[in-house]
Amino acid sequence: MSKNAVPTAKGLERLLQALRALPGVGPRSAQRMAYHLLQHDRAGAGELAQALEGALTGVRRCERCHNFCEEEICALCRSSRRDPSLLCVVETPADLAMIEQTMSYSGMYFVLMGRLSPLDGVGPRDIGLDRLLERASAGEVQEVILATNFTNEGEATAHYVAEMLRARKLRVSRIARGVPLGGELEYVDAGTISQALLERREI
Amino acid sequence: MSKNAVPTAKGLERLLQALRALPGVGPRSAQRMAYHLLQHDRAGAGELAQALEGALTGVRRCERCHNFCEEEICALCRSSRRDPSLLCVVETPADLAMIEQTMSYSGMYFVLMGRLSPLDGVGPRDIGLDRLLERASAGEVQEVILATNFTNEGEATAHYVAEMLRARKLRVSRIARGVPLGGELEYVDAGTISQALLERREI
Repeated sequence: MSKNAVPTAKGLERLLQALRALPGVGPRSAQRMAYHLLQHDRAGAGELAQALEGALTGVRRCERCHNFCEEEICALCRSSRRDPSLLCVVETPADLAMIEQTMSYSGMYFVLMGRLSPLDGVGPRDIGLDRLLERASAGEVQEVILATNFTNEGEATAHYVAEMLRARKLRVSRIARGVPLGGELEYVDAGTISQALLERREI
Repeated sequence: MSKNAVPTAKGLERLLQALRALPGVGPRSAQRMAYHLLQHDRAGAGELAQALEGALTGVRRCERCHNFCEEEICALCRSSRRDPSLLCVVETPADLAMIEQTMSYSGMYFVLMGRLSPLDGVGPRDIGLDRLLERASAGEVQEVILATNFTNEGEATAHYVAEMLRARKLRVSRIARGVPLGGELEYVDAGTISQALLERREI
């Protein structure tokens, strides 16, 4: 769609190309987005341009937990109310936010900003594993809780990270797998049920 | 997702909000896009910001056909090779581009930049109907070809525009509806087949 014989506006062509940088946006969505912004939401387009510039200059990664923030060390890492003996490892800032929403964890975090994925060329360096090991070995951390996703890649990442941590004699745990709250067995997949059986607890 | 108790970076929050201006982008996609840009494609984010600014300042609508362009009158409208007696009415610049790709039309265009949609508050003024009528009545145009989509709204728009044009004694036609090229009857919907039967041509 973006290549056609019609002499279109160069600025529009450039915008169509630039929108493709967004994940999941192909030529058709780019066109729909560009037309929408130029035709119906010029204010939104201006704000988006400025927000992008602002984020590029203002947003950085926390030196300690690797989460996005605007200071060298983020507020959570600086907080004296958090328990520095617990370190929870998550894949993304969104996962961190989800755990915070539960209000049931008061330790620190380490954000991998991804997961091991050899096929996509994502290795231990890319998820900051050396920094994680360094921090976990510094003495303050008593237990590392692996809260990566229960996808193939998330599981493989947890497995690999756990091995590295155990090799340094560190205590490692993994968040529990099981039937979700409100989950009806009939609609839960077999793998989850078999894990829930295997990891059953006495009550 | 965008509202959480975690003290997140303000610049990131602003970007998450700004991305919502894109059609079809909800809180989750906005998050995925923002993380991707900040983590993996900062160059792409910068280019997108500049492309947006460039499009906002450089891209305008042609005075004659209402298509996006960078001059007062677009190259197509200025071309002496086009037949000024034919005026094809389309909903979007994408539709115009599709027709141009067929290389089977050499007349002029008028882009509605939308379609009549009373429920969304899109009336005749919003699709530039007064400008279309003015141009069609100026004397040069001999036939107006309605090439709006065969959706409910596109059909209603064609119907309404046709009435207005006929009231001014102008010749109006509608592009043909029928079985698409390569279409197998088995997989074509009943409405299309019944129209194809109704509009059958002697051969």
